[in-house]
Amino acid sequence: MKIVIDAMGGDNAPLEIVHGAIDALNADKDVQIVLVGDINKINPVLAECEYEKSRVEIIDAKEEISNEESPTMAIKTKRESSLVKSFEKLKSDEDAGGFVSAGSTGAVLVGAFMKVGRIKGVSRPALAPVLPTLEGNGVVLCDCGANVDCKPINLLHFAIMASSYAQAMLGVEKPRVGLLNNGAEAHKGNELSKQAYELLSGSEDINFVGNCEARDMLTGDFDVVVTDGFAGNIALKTAEGTANLLLKLIKRGVYAGGLKPKLGAVMLKPVFKDVKAKLDFNAQGGACFLGVNKVIVKAHGASSRSAITASILQAQDLARKNICRKIREGVTRANGMTAAEADEN
Amino acid sequence: MKIVIDAMGGDNAPLEIVHGAIDALNADKDVQIVLVGDINKINPVLAECEYEKSRVEIIDAKEEISNEESPTMAIKTKRESSLVKSFEKLKSDEDAGGFVSAGSTGAVLVGAFMKVGRIKGVSRPALAPVLPTLEGNGVVLCDCGANVDCKPINLLHFAIMASSYAQAMLGVEKPRVGLLNNGAEAHKGNELSKQAYELLSGSEDINFVGNCEARDMLTGDFDVVVTDGFAGNIALKTAEGTANLLLKLIKRGVYAGGLKPKLGAVMLKPVFKDVKAKLDFNAQGGACFLGVNKVIVKAHGASSRSAITASILQAQDLARKNICRKIREGVTRANGMTAAEADEN
Repeated sequence: MKIVIDAMGGDNAPLEIVHGAIDALNADKDVQIVLVGDINKINPVLAECEYEKSRVEIIDAKEEISNEESPTMAIKTKRESSLVKSFEKLKSDEDAGGFVSAGSTGAVLVGAFMKVGRIKGVSRPALAPVLPTLEGNGVVLCDCGANVDCKPINLLHFAIMASSYAQAMLGVEKPRVGLLNNGAEAHKGNELSKQAYELLSGSEDINFVGNCEARDMLTGDFDVVVTDGFAGNIALKTAEGTANLLLKLIKRGVYAGGLKPKLGAVMLKPVFKDVKAKLDFNAQGGACFLGVNKVIVKAHGASSRSAITASILQAQDLARKNICRKIREGVTRANGMTAAEADEN
Repeated sequence: MKIVIDAMGGDNAPLEIVHGAIDALNADKDVQIVLVGDINKINPVLAECEYEKSRVEIIDAKEEISNEESPTMAIKTKRESSLVKSFEKLKSDEDAGGFVSAGSTGAVLVGAFMKVGRIKGVSRPALAPVLPTLEGNGVVLCDCGANVDCKPINLLHFAIMASSYAQAMLGVEKPRVGLLNNGAEAHKGNELSKQAYELLSGSEDINFVGNCEARDMLTGDFDVVVTDGFAGNIALKTAEGTANLLLKLIKRGVYAGGLKPKLGAVMLKPVFKDVKAKLDFNAQGGACFLGVNKVIVKAHGASSRSAITASILQAQDLARKNICRKIREGVTRANGMTAAEADEN
């Protein structure tokens, strides 16, 4: 199984990306990697590393796509970019099961959609990070930004895709699916969530447990929380911003408070370290773009070497577990079509 | 100036409500209070208190409205409830400038809308809490749940109302207004936020500074953040849930960590206390329901005596600063109507 890696994407490319890829290679003997990017920049980094050369392929790509560009325009015109060449490799090489990039989110989503293609039956692919929870292994939030305007059927598909994802990532057999809403009661919500509630509660393909108020998203009461990409993005980034605010307030209090709190902070250092690690949304890999024909992992732009390694191993694991096939089967079943019929479309 | 108080609303009614009201009375000599509720339950609490009797009025109301009831049905049928009688007092007594309730949010909003009435020109009244920020005095989030489906014009009105509110509550002359969105760039957003962006950036009646990503909502870079009530509710409750998660994780780490972190936690106690106080969204009062003809403050259901006092003083302050008149003038100007024309409608 090969994992294709955009060596030029992210704030720390290509140095941390290449090092992270080599670490993944050395951590799992089944991994093969395809580094896509400027060979003149990749080779000097590789020269510093020890690894099995036969498991590394390099595809030269002289162009890069930045965060500032229009994703659609960039994917259409920059044929020599590391992203476009990565997607072409994914499409043409059957052994290439997954892809990791820390580059522009928009370009990764648009490129995967246009070049790798949607799984048959999926109305809209969606971006799904795993967020930390108080109890349990985390919660899959889907969608968190790929589709800002949604229809109820999209949310049903998100629930099916994210359930397969939660099975693979969190190891839960029947993921409890919640609908992000402005109240726990069944009648609550805006037009979209009211209609989505009907659809989700009537589906036999998921384990729908009801509405999820945003304050309960991180308790561990849900394995999957579905919502449109606008509200999901608000939830994801509010969580990041609030955690950031709280840690800064504590730090500020410690600095302002004289010797005693400073000593206390030193004694609490291991606790703060653990909490920060638990809250690091990217430690266990990136957000998965669910609903396209290969495994696409979007790592954080600021990803370090270890975050890239985690993302590659995550992509490898998901590809090995046939997540794309499972999503296709689930969505096909929900759409009331047989796999054969879907093939004919 | 009289402040009407729903003595029966909230988890701690009437005990904490009545005590909180008497504390407000003793804190500000200009406050007069009207306690609405079951006189047989209010009088025994009052008997324990010392206060100027001439500044307290009691309106007997034998019915109560619970969180479980349909707000519209309850307001229509429970004429003897503390809420309905409160709104009638607000409507009929010119001296009654404001109202405080810790009862059912839905019933307070519906009742205020139906009985006290919308300010002329306001398309939709909206609920606006003040959230804590890293820098500055806080940020007004509007709407956070009253209107789950919105049109762009609603968001412009929210911006105007919340700006008047931020002037009064936060003491900023030209509140910086942000539009909650899934990206900072001008072209970002769903259909609603894209159209709202056009409207907000073209308005001379507010100080619009652009899109606000949810992770920047609590930095202090914005005095007002506007959004539809669905996304606002998600943002508000995600912030609450995340703060809760983080504090619980720290607590858990301390308990699991042996003597050293426990000692550290004792030394850091004043810092944690300050941080918790800063994050207490209700310490400075309740959320204001902007756009109706009197000041309506919705205190948290779990409000303690001191939170009720804060809410009453907040209502008094807002009424004294003529917030309703300012909102009316602002909205009228934005709607391109003179106050005289608005009167004729």
